[in-house]
Amino acid sequence: MWQLYQFPLCPFSRKVRLMLGEKGVPHELVRESPWARRDEFLDMNPAGQTPVLAQVGKGTVLIDSVAICEYFEETVDRAPMIPGGAAARAEVRRLVAWFDEKLYGEVVAPMMEERMRKRLVSRDAPDTRILREAMKTANAHLDYIDYLLDHRRWLGGPVLSLVDLAAAAQLSVADYLGGLDWRGHKQTVDWYAVMKSRPSFRPLLSERMEVIAPPAHYDKVDFF
Amino acid sequence: MWQLYQFPLCPFSRKVRLMLGEKGVPHELVRESPWARRDEFLDMNPAGQTPVLAQVGKGTVLIDSVAICEYFEETVDRAPMIPGGAAARAEVRRLVAWFDEKLYGEVVAPMMEERMRKRLVSRDAPDTRILREAMKTANAHLDYIDYLLDHRRWLGGPVLSLVDLAAAAQLSVADYLGGLDWRGHKQTVDWYAVMKSRPSFRPLLSERMEVIAPPAHYDKVDFF
Ligand SMILES: N[C@@H](CCC(=O)N[C@@H](CS)C(=O)NCC(=O)O)C(=O)O
Ligand SMILES: N[C@@H](CCC(=O)N[C@@H](CS)C(=O)NCC(=O)O)C(=O)O
Repeated sequence: MWQLYQFPLCPFSRKVRLMLGEKGVPHELVRESPWARRDEFLDMNPAGQTPVLAQVGKGTVLIDSVAICEYFEETVDRAPMIPGGAAARAEVRRLVAWFDEKLYGEVVAPMMEERMRKRLVSRDAPDTRILREAMKTANAHLDYIDYLLDHRRWLGGPVLSLVDLAAAAQLSVADYLGGLDWRGHKQTVDWYAVMKSRPSFRPLLSERMEVIAPPAHYDKVDFF
Repeated sequence: MWQLYQFPLCPFSRKVRLMLGEKGVPHELVRESPWARRDEFLDMNPAGQTPVLAQVGKGTVLIDSVAICEYFEETVDRAPMIPGGAAARAEVRRLVAWFDEKLYGEVVAPMMEERMRKRLVSRDAPDTRILREAMKTANAHLDYIDYLLDHRRWLGGPVLSLVDLAAAAQLSVADYLGGLDWRGHKQTVDWYAVMKSRPSFRPLLSERMEVIAPPAHYDKVDFF
């Protein structure tokens, strides 16, 4: 049995959970707060980051969401998430990196810092200037997703791929933290409603992070 | 023919150049300074980042160093750089992410900002506090590489892999910028001398970035 070290609002753990769900890989969740810097966790992953996926008894420890997703793409044939030929696969990996780095770095990470970590850990007030900037950038990201969906059926190409999982994982955390204004992004709203209704997504949406409540529309499939 | 959009001190472009060199993929270099935010470049890569690899005439455009390296690992059998079974490949990808994110983010990026971008672009004085912090962290990274080499022949396992290319690419930029103190890191020095002597590495070491000169030992294989 695989054990996934994660916390409910870690977007990279969400991406891995969606991947495991689509592939049908059974796993149990272990709650880990990377900011606690627990010794046993640092021994397992010197980067001190979630997600980590460990196979109980077998000693296999997988670290880094990209490495974990590639591992299951290689070992489980069901539901290919990096589909197609080499060029199509490169496009999937480009966009996964885009959402993991840009959407995370510019939008999700500052929102997590201001609205989650400061509230739970340091108890400082959020910096509203940073939040405003992140929400503005979030809007540009939603524009880019609209643009992708104007040109293709799914974000990475003609079929569902890891890009959809990566983007939905990041957006769901920003949405939980009240950081997204969906108005004017009809294509993205429709795509996200489809993602939310997938069985792999339902368990994530029903979970809550202590102290922090999501907006009312957060777990509704039809929110407009 | 592939064209690689890059500048001499971009560590991710260096990783791709080492990969192409090891695999024997012919390519030519196109100089691109991402900070110039050239329109045609942004049209090609909305992330505005180097490296980008474009195939003249064929319309294939590969973006993101990880996606590019995976592409050539899939399409060129020679010199496997993500070798072994699924677990071994996951370990290679974990460590590539480690060097791409941690060594870059904590050491190489601040050095590039202070010693390259400020000098070439904004003409501000470097922030010596940030540089001191980056050099301290660089030392911890060299310790970690020593530790890996105490346990395995190459950084990613028993054979040369993308981990060695990723680490050498990042370290070579930090070294060019005078940011590494190699003393006390014998294992890493020996491994890096071997990397430097590889034919794939020689062209990188002979190149210079305008205005900025590397330290005397930079391109010497035996620097102690
Ligand atoms: N490249 C990693 C990034 C993981 C990551 O940034 N995790 C965050 C939580 S969402 C974390 O653990 N941050 C704590 C830290 O960096 O110290 C992956 O894709 O798994
Ligand atoms: N994930 C990208 C990162 C590339 C990257 O950060 N490139 C830098 C130059 S070393 C860049 O273009 N920075 C300009 C910017 O981010 O605007 C990759 O692996 O290719």
